[in-house]
Formats: sequence, C-alpha cells, structure tokens
Amino acid sequence: MPIIHDTAGRRDRLRNLLRERSDAGGPVSAFIVSDLVNVRYLTGFTGSNAAVLIDAEDPAGDRIATDGRYLTQVAAQVPDLEAVIERACVPALLERARTAGAGRVGFEADAVTVASLRALEKSVDGAPVELLGLTGVVQGLREVKDAGEVALIRAACAIGDAALAQIIADGVLRAGTTEREAARALEFAVYRLGADGIAFETIVAAGAHSAIPHHRPTGAVLADGDLVKIDFGAVVGGYHSDMTRTFVLGRAADWQREIYELVARAQAAGRAALRPGADLRAVDAAARDVIDAAGHGEHYVHGLGHGVGLQIHEAPGIGKLAAGTLPCGAAVTVEPGVYLPGWGGVRIEDTLVVSDGEPELLTTTDKTFTVL
Amino acid sequence: MPIIHDTAGRRDRLRNLLRERSDAGGPVSAFIVSDLVNVRYLTGFTGSNAAVLIDAEDPAGDRIATDGRYLTQVAAQVPDLEAVIERACVPALLERARTAGAGRVGFEADAVTVASLRALEKSVDGAPVELLGLTGVVQGLREVKDAGEVALIRAACAIGDAALAQIIADGVLRAGTTEREAARALEFAVYRLGADGIAFETIVAAGAHSAIPHHRPTGAVLADGDLVKIDFGAVVGGYHSDMTRTFVLGRAADWQREIYELVARAQAAGRAALRPGADLRAVDAAARDVIDAAGHGEHYVHGLGHGVGLQIHEAPGIGKLAAGTLPCGAAVTVEPGVYLPGWGGVRIEDTLVVSDGEPELLTTTDKTFTVL
Repeated sequence: MPIIHDTAGRRDRLRNLLRERSDAGGPVSAFIVSDLVNVRYLTGFTGSNAAVLIDAEDPAGDRIATDGRYLTQVAAQVPDLEAVIERACVPALLERARTAGAGRVGFEADAVTVASLRALEKSVDGAPVELLGLTGVVQGLREVKDAGEVALIRAACAIGDAALAQIIADGVLRAGTTEREAARALEFAVYRLGADGIAFETIVAAGAHSAIPHHRPTGAVLADGDLVKIDFGAVVGGYHSDMTRTFVLGRAADWQREIYELVARAQAAGRAALRPGADLRAVDAAARDVIDAAGHGEHYVHGLGHGVGLQIHEAPGIGKLAAGTLPCGAAVTVEPGVYLPGWGGVRIEDTLVVSDGEPELLTTTDKTFTVL
Repeated sequence: MPIIHDTAGRRDRLRNLLRERSDAGGPVSAFIVSDLVNVRYLTGFTGSNAAVLIDAEDPAGDRIATDGRYLTQVAAQVPDLEAVIERACVPALLERARTAGAGRVGFEADAVTVASLRALEKSVDGAPVELLGLTGVVQGLREVKDAGEVALIRAACAIGDAALAQIIADGVLRAGTTEREAARALEFAVYRLGADGIAFETIVAAGAHSAIPHHRPTGAVLADGDLVKIDFGAVVGGYHSDMTRTFVLGRAADWQREIYELVARAQAAGRAALRPGADLRAVDAAARDVIDAAGHGEHYVHGLGHGVGLQIHEAPGIGKLAAGTLPCGAAVTVEPGVYLPGWGGVRIEDTLVVSDGEPELLTTTDKTFTVL
C-alpha cells in the first residue's frame, strides 16, 4: 500500500500556524524543526540526522538539512525541497535563515537540548537574530490524522489482530511456553504478515507478572490458572498499532473473572467517551470512575490512553493531568487496567480513531473473557 | 550469562569526578542524571522514565526516581537505592536535592531540553539553588568498558558472526533474494541465536544501493555481479555489536576487487592505529590517508568509527573533527568505506576493544575478498 503523504500541505498548515501564533514580540519569521519524527511528518525523510527550515512567509524558502550519508536518500524522499548537506543541521539552517534575513527564528524547545542551544547562541552571537523556543507545535498538527495516516494505522492494527490470532491458533499460549517464547512468536508473526517492524518491545506477562504494567518477558513458564497479558503492536509505513489483550490459561478463578469484567466495563466506558471536543480529563474519568467505584482505584496506576501515529506515544495524552480536548481525527488508545501485586493484572487496550459518530475501532480482536 | 554490573562502583567514580570538576564557581553538590542510558549504566534500571540523583559527598544521598508503572521493576533492578516514585522525575529529584541542602545542582545539558529546563527554573524560582548544565560527564565514564561490559559486547559480536555464517550457509545471499528478505533472515538468525534484540535496522544493500552508506533494505533483488554490503548487529544484556561485511555475488569485476582491497588496507591501518592514548584524529587519518592516497578521498564520506556499548553509537567518535585520545578499554568500530555513486560501494567494519597490546578483535568473520 504505497501511501503518498501530502507533506507540502502539512508544511503549509504549519506555516499558517506560525503566522497565527502571538508569542511575545510577534510571530517568528522562520522555524527550525529538528525533532526527527516531526521532520519525517513534514518531509517524508527517514534518515537519522536532519532538520527542516520553515519560512513563515514563502514555501520557496523552506529547506531540509541532512549529512552526506543521506545524499541519495534525501533526493529520493524529499524531491520537493532544496537540501542543505551539513552534518550540523540546525546551525546550518539557522545560518541559512539569517542569510535570508530572518529576524526571529523559532526552534523546537522540546527537541533542542540545553547544550545545543548554547552552541546555537554562540553561533549567532552579535548577529541581529533572536532565537525563540517553541513547544509542541508540530506535535499539535500531528494529533489529527489524515486519511493516508489512518489507512496505515488501520493496516498495522489488522496485522496485530492477525498475528495474535495466529499464535493462538498455533497453540503458543499454553502451559509450558515461556513469556519470551510467546513474545518472540508474536513478533515473528507480525513480521511475517508484512509489518515493517514491531511497535515497541512486546509485553507478555504471565501469572503474578501480569500485575506489572510494563513487564519485560522473561524465561518464566506459562502455567494453567495464569492471567496472561499481551501488549504489542506493528509498524506499517512508520505508523504504529497498539493493542492489549488478557487471557486466562486452563481454568479461571472468580477473582480473575471479576477484575476482567470490571476492566472491560471501564474500557467500554472510555471508548464511549471518545467524542470530538471531549475534555481529555473527562474521557479519563469516564473509565476511571468505573474502577474507583469498584474500590480498585489504587490498583489502576496509569492514564487511560495516548495518541498513536508516527510514534507509539504521542499527543494527546488521556490521563488525570491531561489538558485540552480531543480533536476529531485523533488516533488514540483506550487501555485501563487493574493490577493486584503478587496476584495478577488485567489490561484491555484498543486503538481507535475519533470521528463525528462512533469512534472507529481499529483493533478488532475479541474482548470477551476468554479461557485458553 | 548473568552479568552483575558494579553500578555502585560506577556511581562512586561519578561522585569522584564531580568533586574533581572545577567549573566556574566550584563543584556541584548534587548531579541529576536523566539520560536513560546513563541511568541504566549507573543503576541497572531499564524502564522508560527515570532519573538518578548523585550526591557529590555521600552515597546515602543517592536516589532513583521513576513512576508508578515501574514500582516492582525498580525494586528488583535497583535494590540498593531508595526510589522516589513520581512521574516528573527530574523535578522530584531537584526538590529532594534542595531539601537535602544542595546549593549547586548539576543537570545533563545534553539530555534536558530547553523546555524542561524552563520548567525546572520555574520550580526553583526564588529558592537558594543554582542549576548547572554539564555535558558528557557519564558518557565519558562509559567510554572505558569493564570486564562485564566487554563480555556482553563479545557475546553480541559472536552472535553476529554466527548469524552471518548461518545465512551464508543457508544460501540466502544469492541472486534472486531481495534485500529485505536477506535482512529479515539475518535478524531472525540473530534472535534465534539468543540475542535480546538487533542493534539497529539491518542494512543490506545490493548493486548500486551498496554505494549508499546507510541504505534501508528494499524489495530490490540481488543479482550476480552485485556488491552486497551488510551492516548489522546484535544486543546482549543491553550491549551492542556492530559489523559490516561486503561480498560480491557470482563473479567479480576488477574495479570491485580493487576498491575492496583498498578498503581492506585502510581498515587494517585503522585497526593498527588503535592504541591507548592515540589521538582520535590520528586514528581516523591512519585509515583515511590510505584511501586519499589512492585518489578515493571524496568517495569516503564518513568518519572511521565510534564507541559501542549500551548505545550503538557512543563516545569516543573517531573522525576528522574528533577531539581527545583513545582510552585503554574503549570498545570501538573501525569502518572505512569507498562508495562510487551509481556503481557500488564497499565497507568493512569490525568492533574491537583497545588494550595495552594489540586491540582485541571481537567480530571475527573473515575479511578476505569473497565471491559468493
């Protein structure tokens, strides 16, 4: 599925945003983007060293910078931008902006380190240019996914569904398998189904390990009576999927069924709260209230979900301390959990896209309580 | 191979270093480490959100901070440090340092972003504490590997050697295979041999693609007469290996043999220059001079090598612009290349450990010119 992203359109939306910003002293005349994920979003470039200069007035002033290793790649991936070939990308683009007469130049304060800014400030010492650290600008644009992005996330989620179904059909999730073997089998299935990569280190957590929200798979052997929590994803064209399912092996205890049904109700409430314009804290509360009311509030130690896209965790975050509202077109996870230390835990997670009607559910693996 | 790292010893070495530093205004009374790789090095903790407070005077003042997801993990991995459980790790440790009476607190200027520093400065506003951005402090300690670290890098390199031998024995590297299939087969072999992960996205570059230093494998089909350049690595216990080999398929042309032998001579010269105390630029020049003398200087577009350890690229960098000398115990790559755009390229890369005598060669796959 070759998706051609409208990167020029994204740069124009960013340009409009820059002109609208009313920071102290007025808008910037140029903006240097150096977060590599943001660079990819704005240009399609996937190399490991790059930055983009956005001219606030004129698209013809836009540049991409990268180093000599990527000469061929940048020409192929970014045919529509003039490339500056320099190892130190941000200083090179700042120099370019100065030469073009930029007075106020924005940079990504959430990507540039304190040490890098020191070097930049030294490089412009005495010159008539002012550096302004902006935060979250491109990340804000990235919250709303376009059709091509949703298609890639949907494809990644479909691979996740199929991979999990396959290892269940192959009998991998049974007593005697180690957590590591199950994780590896799942990752191999994800690759075999055509993913470009896995989304993050696969979590397979059995028995008491399932009470650890982010457990790294060990040599521990799955046993009958265990809760087995599996959290994993695929990457397709740079876009991630994210899904968690929790099963019981062999025979289920009453407490396992009870916390499963509780988490499932909370998760359904969270999904139902995904409406355009919804307050992010209210979405979190919709699920959390269900768990709190059942007396398990202290066993639910994380937020409800997060945006998914070019990164596995991106804006918007949905949690108790979130700020803002949910935009139409956001791709997010809904993943409440209840974790009983020493006993076991349950998490149920889907990836969905917020739309005008019902949110679109991209991870379609069954969520009813299942004993394997 | 369960290696127990002496993380307390590393923290003590860092403490000594902090006391020795003579920054303007005298040494710091505490240092907050928030680069996650440095956190792992100093504590063994592998979670995705953490920071460490190093008390310049008293080990009992050291703390690790992480959030609630990692309550169990931090107790298991870092039993010897008191944990502060807070999502915002650096602010929490700064508050702890202030409470303990620290006047000058160092932070990692190469890890803390401009936006994070703003928030920190706001949090201490008016309080009698001074924030100092330091760079490369823990990275400097990490340059010299201890025996446990070398053992893990050696194990990762051995897996790389065995994996490459296996796909060659399996006949993967032949006309008809795609670059992507070869990369995937190699990565699967690395996993099957017991690695915890692959070190970076495997490079398999055939024919004209081999002239692209960092090529992502495509659906391009390997053909007789192609140069095939393979650059890959394994991870064992967090430590990386890095090796490049270049082969010819079917039949070799004279120009292929010529640039191969040139690169091999340059690589041997680079390896021979790896002596404790050697100037890093002189090490780079030892190999570069060979290629320059043959008139291919413009076709060698990158540095000679880099440190390898918890990261695939770490200090020391060995290149034209490097500064400093090579310490005894450093694990580094030596990887010159000659790339002829449109034709093909050759890179030969080993991972070695600098020692008092000959450097120890950890990647032992044969380097003689080979037609497969």
